[in-house]
Amino acid sequence: MSKVITPRSQDYSQWYNDLVIKGELADYSAVRGCMVIKPYGFAIWEKMKEILDNMFKETGHSNAYFPLLIPKSFLSREADHVEGFAKECAVVTHYRLKNSPDGKGLIVDPDAKLEEELIVRPTSEAIIWNSYKNWIQSYRDLPLKINQWANVVRWEMRTRLFLRTTEFLWQEGHTAHETEQEAIEEAEMILKIYARFAEEYMAMPVLQGLKSESERFAGAVETYCIEGLMQDGKSLQAGTSHFLGQNFAKAFDVKYSTREGTLEYVWASSWGVSTRLIGALLMVHSDDDGLILPPKLAPIQVVIVPIYRKDEQLAAIGQKANEIMNSLKLAGISVKYDDDDKFKPGWKFAQYEMQGVPVRIAIGPRDLENKQVEIARRDTKEKFSLPMDNVAVAIEELLDEIQTGILNKALKFRKENTTSVDSYDEFKSVIEEKGGFVLAHWDGSPETEEKIKNDTKATIRVIPMDGEVEKGMDMISGKPSVRRVVFAKSY
Amino acid sequence: MSKVITPRSQDYSQWYNDLVIKGELADYSAVRGCMVIKPYGFAIWEKMKEILDNMFKETGHSNAYFPLLIPKSFLSREADHVEGFAKECAVVTHYRLKNSPDGKGLIVDPDAKLEEELIVRPTSEAIIWNSYKNWIQSYRDLPLKINQWANVVRWEMRTRLFLRTTEFLWQEGHTAHETEQEAIEEAEMILKIYARFAEEYMAMPVLQGLKSESERFAGAVETYCIEGLMQDGKSLQAGTSHFLGQNFAKAFDVKYSTREGTLEYVWASSWGVSTRLIGALLMVHSDDDGLILPPKLAPIQVVIVPIYRKDEQLAAIGQKANEIMNSLKLAGISVKYDDDDKFKPGWKFAQYEMQGVPVRIAIGPRDLENKQVEIARRDTKEKFSLPMDNVAVAIEELLDEIQTGILNKALKFRKENTTSVDSYDEFKSVIEEKGGFVLAHWDGSPETEEKIKNDTKATIRVIPMDGEVEKGMDMISGKPSVRRVVFAKSY
Repeated sequence: MSKVITPRSQDYSQWYNDLVIKGELADYSAVRGCMVIKPYGFAIWEKMKEILDNMFKETGHSNAYFPLLIPKSFLSREADHVEGFAKECAVVTHYRLKNSPDGKGLIVDPDAKLEEELIVRPTSEAIIWNSYKNWIQSYRDLPLKINQWANVVRWEMRTRLFLRTTEFLWQEGHTAHETEQEAIEEAEMILKIYARFAEEYMAMPVLQGLKSESERFAGAVETYCIEGLMQDGKSLQAGTSHFLGQNFAKAFDVKYSTREGTLEYVWASSWGVSTRLIGALLMVHSDDDGLILPPKLAPIQVVIVPIYRKDEQLAAIGQKANEIMNSLKLAGISVKYDDDDKFKPGWKFAQYEMQGVPVRIAIGPRDLENKQVEIARRDTKEKFSLPMDNVAVAIEELLDEIQTGILNKALKFRKENTTSVDSYDEFKSVIEEKGGFVLAHWDGSPETEEKIKNDTKATIRVIPMDGEVEKGMDMISGKPSVRRVVFAKSY
Repeated sequence: MSKVITPRSQDYSQWYNDLVIKGELADYSAVRGCMVIKPYGFAIWEKMKEILDNMFKETGHSNAYFPLLIPKSFLSREADHVEGFAKECAVVTHYRLKNSPDGKGLIVDPDAKLEEELIVRPTSEAIIWNSYKNWIQSYRDLPLKINQWANVVRWEMRTRLFLRTTEFLWQEGHTAHETEQEAIEEAEMILKIYARFAEEYMAMPVLQGLKSESERFAGAVETYCIEGLMQDGKSLQAGTSHFLGQNFAKAFDVKYSTREGTLEYVWASSWGVSTRLIGALLMVHSDDDGLILPPKLAPIQVVIVPIYRKDEQLAAIGQKANEIMNSLKLAGISVKYDDDDKFKPGWKFAQYEMQGVPVRIAIGPRDLENKQVEIARRDTKEKFSLPMDNVAVAIEELLDEIQTGILNKALKFRKENTTSVDSYDEFKSVIEEKGGFVLAHWDGSPETEEKIKNDTKATIRVIPMDGEVEKGMDMISGKPSVRRVVFAKSY
């Protein structure tokens, strides 16, 4: 059967690609590094979007839309920003094609060359701050808290479906504030929203904290991030929130008159999560039979499959299935009744297992007689019968149990794969053999960080902000350190 | 006051721009022909999206996402399509910038030239049908009914905020079917959805019908459209739905094995509406004081403004306002309480009038005493008092009345500005002096159509499909005609 996927133990990377392709989440496209997000994958993104969008709106943000194309010169305004993004961008140089003189297809019309090239946005700080300059004059115009759902393009050399694609979908928030403190609070508040979304909805535990200087966003003063641990022991950066200081305000000359009548540069934050979250979602929970989706993000939470030989059996099952569907819908549960006669039940079972539908209900003639249904739970593979009466209540509880169950499983995995080490030898052997998160003391210098990266490919994923302060010394330099930081290999 | 807008009678075009800019719907950007959609304008788009998206999903469509960038050669596959779109597109030729050798900014890196140029999508038939080729093998894979919400770029020479911009947001549906009949029914079903959306939600009456050959979508067999009449007597194409025949299936070699075991090309439709709808919405209803928005699409349906001198008055008003807000929210009405003390009531009144909030409620100390509120209705400018008790019920009725009222006003305007003519002299004088929709007989030839366009700038906006069949003769050639078609000048 073509739908069998490669086991994790055999080839983790191929396992992941199989999940995406055979689960019908996305497909490769004709354009290098760009993917097609198929309806099932896009339905997950729509769920994510809706939840995050509500969280942003509840905290006072509005959506807007800024141009896709950014004048080349805008990128140069902020010195670090240009270093970070100019090296990997799609450049529009012309605005017209014409028929080739030899009659074979189309050529770029040399007469239609742009005076200034346009960059397909890799991120929108530059174009947005150019607008903010016109929108902000006084403290009355602040805070300005805008989010945008958009596509962006970064010319990545090595791409992977969802995890790193040339074009991806994301949201980017861009806020402007009167004070430094307010901008920092905004960046931290958003980090907490991202962490809550990851844990409550994706059932993915994440570490929260700061990036070291070398991993900071190009143009930021501080970058906050959430990091999740994947099943292969690698860390995945799932969201970032940046305190931008006055860098972009200075680059685009955005000043405001204060309550005291002085003129000051405004303070800023920016933050984003992308379709990469779908890759994380897949890698945290899925198994060798396919996707395991948390009920809160599953496009279909329950599927009902009729088992029958004769048409009159199907009619009787259909009637019962309809009653169950209605009671599930009333409870706010999304349900699909699959009576498509082009496919056999066995094929359907394999398909929904592959696609990670959390609960499958099968109903056959004998179930009707016994007034029960057969339940299959995707995450644990358990099968059991439930009485038909009030089945919606039982299913609702079961979905909650699955949501909690897979979070706990992921928490357990992370705990088992988090190691504290005190010597560099121990560090190297854990990174090499066990993987996972490694907690170690670091003296704060880029040199040590660089050496560790060169030796082991591990980087500092997070510098924790809260929690335990523990004095120690850097495992390489021996210099003092006040807290352990989190190292790992990463995506 | 800077917020006064140009009257329609003085300069219609400037009136429209004032609506957009001073109503804070959109702003010009630094990129030629591209606009920034500001939060208030984007909130209208979000309402439109949500309603349309539900309509598409209820009729069996799923959302997906296809790449922004299209290989140049794909555009050439369908002969008419390339003629229609290659002349006005943004072309990506390079994938990297580098620091200029003279140290002054960035230049395009000549070493990073793409082997094949990429086009920023002007529409997605080409890239989508290239995927459909892989997705469709058998009748089991059909129908395939996919929609995408996306940004597109068309290098327009003359642009206008919302109505014609270089980049715009839209939805594009792309469907594949077993039979010709099914694809035609799809295109017609979508046309009816568009018309229902325009009339029920936008309160904009539209004519439905076919385009003549010269106005057809590049690559379509038939183009269906909806057309609305603007206050300056010009017609605006608000949505199109295309029956594509087998044109794209042939261009991208998409065949399916039929139920009978033969191999056939599939049949297709495509259809779209865009942020242009916002321009139409503004022009149909607004007046010289600003926007008039239909309650069903207004981001804020009701605003409550407190009138007070002392803080204890504000506290008492705030308490009542909260009660009213809660009862309105329970009724599903969106409401804003504006107690921002940075602005005076008069300023707020002008602002909400400008932005077309359908109902304004003012509450002062005397209103509290009399247990009433002061209502101002945006569309008719009427002001009256209502008892505080059960005010939500009255407001709900009022919003319905406004929705119906502005639709009826627009219907009346269209009726008064629709003229039947039988001679070309009469035609020319009506087009020139009165404007509006002109119903006239046409012999079906592109030559007559062309002559009329050259003489008068009027084009055939719609060939009605249903309704009256009336024999007559072409006003120029004298040749026979079976039904009147609709001419107008247009956007």
